[in-house]
This record gives sequence, C-alpha cells and structure tokens, in this order.
Amino acid sequence: MSTEPGQSRGGRIRLVVSYDGANFHGFARQYGLRTVQGVLEETLTNLLGVQIDVHGSGRTDRGVHARAQVVHFDLPYGPPANRLVHVLSGRLPSDIIPISAHNVDSDFHARFSVVRKTYRYHIFRGVHPDVFKYRFSWHVREPLNIALMQRAASHLVGEHDFTSFCAAAAPQEDKVRRIYEVNVVESGEDAFLYCSGSGFLQYMVRIITGTLVDVGLGDISADAIPDILAAKSRVSAGRTAPAHGLCLWNVEYPIVYGGRVLDL
Amino acid sequence: MSTEPGQSRGGRIRLVVSYDGANFHGFARQYGLRTVQGVLEETLTNLLGVQIDVHGSGRTDRGVHARAQVVHFDLPYGPPANRLVHVLSGRLPSDIIPISAHNVDSDFHARFSVVRKTYRYHIFRGVHPDVFKYRFSWHVREPLNIALMQRAASHLVGEHDFTSFCAAAAPQEDKVRRIYEVNVVESGEDAFLYCSGSGFLQYMVRIITGTLVDVGLGDISADAIPDILAAKSRVSAGRTAPAHGLCLWNVEYPIVYGGRVLDL
Repeated sequence: MSTEPGQSRGGRIRLVVSYDGANFHGFARQYGLRTVQGVLEETLTNLLGVQIDVHGSGRTDRGVHARAQVVHFDLPYGPPANRLVHVLSGRLPSDIIPISAHNVDSDFHARFSVVRKTYRYHIFRGVHPDVFKYRFSWHVREPLNIALMQRAASHLVGEHDFTSFCAAAAPQEDKVRRIYEVNVVESGEDAFLYCSGSGFLQYMVRIITGTLVDVGLGDISADAIPDILAAKSRVSAGRTAPAHGLCLWNVEYPIVYGGRVLDL
Repeated sequence: MSTEPGQSRGGRIRLVVSYDGANFHGFARQYGLRTVQGVLEETLTNLLGVQIDVHGSGRTDRGVHARAQVVHFDLPYGPPANRLVHVLSGRLPSDIIPISAHNVDSDFHARFSVVRKTYRYHIFRGVHPDVFKYRFSWHVREPLNIALMQRAASHLVGEHDFTSFCAAAAPQEDKVRRIYEVNVVESGEDAFLYCSGSGFLQYMVRIITGTLVDVGLGDISADAIPDILAAKSRVSAGRTAPAHGLCLWNVEYPIVYGGRVLDL
C-alpha cells in the first residue's frame, strides 16, 4: 500500500510509556478521576479530533509507577509512529513520559499478547530518608536479612495457586499463576526485588514483597512459604508493601508474532 | 539548670530538612503561596500554639530541591530536640523530610553562621527520559564533553565578581563571591556538578551549570570563562539551567562556635 508524501497511514500503534504514579488513581480509566489510561485517551482524542481507545498491558494500582508500561491503540490517521513520541511529549503532563512508538500488526494486543511481565519493588534501607527516593521506594529502617528473603523467594518460583498472595477481594477467579523469577538485589542502601511472571493478581507483588520483608525481619520463617501457599488464605501471608515502592518494570511479547517478527 | 522530668527545655534548635521542591514556590515565605519556610512555620506554630519564626541558611528558588537545608528556630517549650524529628515526621507533608534536630547555643544563626554551602546540579544524559529522575534532573540528550566542562569550571574557582553569572535583577549589591570548588562528576548516564562556595547570588549555580553545558556542547570555549567574568554582564554567559535539576546539597558551619564545639 503506497502512502502519499506527508500523509500518515494510521494503523495500530504500540506505545511504551513511563509514569510517576504518585498523582494518578492507577492506570485504569475511572470516571472523574485522574488515571493514566484516561489522560492518554484524552490527549490522543484531543490531538486527532476522534475518540481513541487505549488498551494497556494490564492495570497498575493507585500510586504504582511504571518504567515501561505497554499500550496499543488504533489511529485512523495522524503522525507517523516515528514522530509520535515527540508529538506526545509536548502534550502529555510531565508525569507520563512516552518512550517509544512503533507500528504493529492489527493482531497485536497489549494485554492478550503478553508473555511475561516484570515488576520491581524498591526498598530503601538508609538511616535517614532520601529526598530523591521517598517518592519511589519503601523506607525500611530495621536491618533485613537479604539471604533469607532470597531463600523465601525461591519457594515462590513456578506455577502455584497464589490465593494467599492476593487481595481477598481480587476479581480474578483463577488464582493460578506462574512465576519465572524472584530476585532480591542489594545495592548500597537500596534493595530491589524483581519479580517476573506470566501475570499477576491484585496486590500480588506487594504482598510478596511485604511477606519477604517480614521474612527479612525474622517475623516469618523463610521456609514457611510452601505452607503459606498451601493455606490458600490471604491471612496466612505477611503484610502488603505500600504502593509507591512498586514499579511495572518491563512487559515482554513474542518476538515472532503471527508468523512475522514484531516490528518493535 | 535542672529540668523537671517530662518537661522539655525549649531553646534554640538547629533542624536539617530535605525537600522535594517541585510543589513549592521556593523556600522563602510568600503570602498565599506554598513555601518551605511557610509550611515549617505553620507546622511548628500549630504544634506549639505560639508563633514560631523559622530562619533558613538562605533561600532556594521555586522548584529547587534540598538534600540538607539548615534552619533554626527558638522554642519556648516543646518536645526535646531528640524527639523533634519523629514529631515533625508525622506532621509535615511528605515532600519535606526532617533529617536531624539538635539544641544549639542562642548565638547560632542558620544564615549568618554559614561558612560554606554546596549545591549539586544533576544532568541526566540517557537516550530515553527516566521516570525516577525526571523530577530531579535536567535531561540533556546531546553528547557533552565533560573534560571541557571541568576545564571551564576551574576558571571559576577563587574570589570573583560574579555579575555575569547571576540574574540581571539579582537583589544583592555586592557581586563578589568566593568559590571553593566546582567539580563535574560522571556516573553512567548521570553527570553531577558540585559547586561549593562562601555564598551564591540569585540563579548563580544555574547560570554556571547552563554555561558549563554550553561549553560541553561546544557552543562556548572552555577558556572564555575569564573574559565572561571580566565582562560583568549577564548576557556574556550562557543559558540558565532549569531549576528542577538543582539541589542544595550541604550547608557547613564552624565546628567550634563561640568558644564551644557546636552541639550537632
């Protein structure tokens, strides 16, 4: 299909965005509230003069950040993909940062095509609060035994029923998920928990983090994790870590999609 | 002087605070605007039921952050200094972080006793914006020659008339200041400019940073700095770096004060 010079072709766009979740009521559109999806849709709709629906790889809770959330939407016309980051940078508020935009086939779906998601949880262990980190980390002052946390984390890897590690009111019926990796990485006063899986239930990464912190503090045994999983009850796990330390780190898709290499 | 158990003695307090400057109209109290000094005074006044005046080591401009701003105030009574950080943590908004509080002699003055101040300017050089840094750094995408910036910086060290490196409307009459050190430190995608001196004029660190960036980009010669100083004219220097990359890093006082070692 040829395109006139200066005329853009529209089509399906895969957009990667970062956001600072502090001033959003989460990702998912909610009437009357400031949400990431809502602001993206409003910005694109104002830009193009027609209603644009934005589909995310999944929700993030209120206060949770994203380094690389992936969304898709269909444009009837508009700036070519390679200009879209520039155009959106000038129109989005400073707490949503467009990172990259690419044309993709129309069978790409930001949510249904996901093969793996990674969250990062940032624990800050400094004696004094840090003005550059308070917004993005959980400040834990008591000493944490990181080796015990890593040992507990290893029990979570694999396919399990995560009923004990999600909100009691989580909407999903099937609580079985596969975790590929959980790693706790120390870096000076920081500790980062990276958690990769096929998908996550509501509050799941925050309850995993809170429980691992309880392990690190000596309040829960590292080898209690299998029993906690088996209990299939939220009360058997530890606390829920606060939202503002959590960040959607990465969303992965098949490299080959519909018989073609994804144009990323 | 003995103190009843449970009764606190009040007196002069030296308080160190961090703040995230994004949502403040600078440090200095301004009627009807949210300022750091205003919020500190309001919080202390509400806590104690009497008007408390807070004195800072100096102003910071709108949008500028502080890792360690120093203030003093006099308490007629109130929590002992070693409880004050805890008490204030629960009452201050999350973007002002109390770090430490100590009793000091009544001749200590947060502003007049300063012997050295250090600012840090954060330049972020990543290809993509970084959601954890956008709030606290200036994103410069073009390659910077850091060695040239350091060479230019060395010309600023010493006592000079900094008329060329301050706001044309700067209120201070005497434009002579002494700079002790200017260092440009690379760390991965970040570059930090540390600038220590006896004191600074309005916008001085931001104009120094902007001019050094112009040097790093090749737009101003590193060895043009002496001529720029000699011109005593704001237009001879480079641009003004944005406020949000700047942070008041440290404020230093004499260790021995009034014949006594400062009770810090």
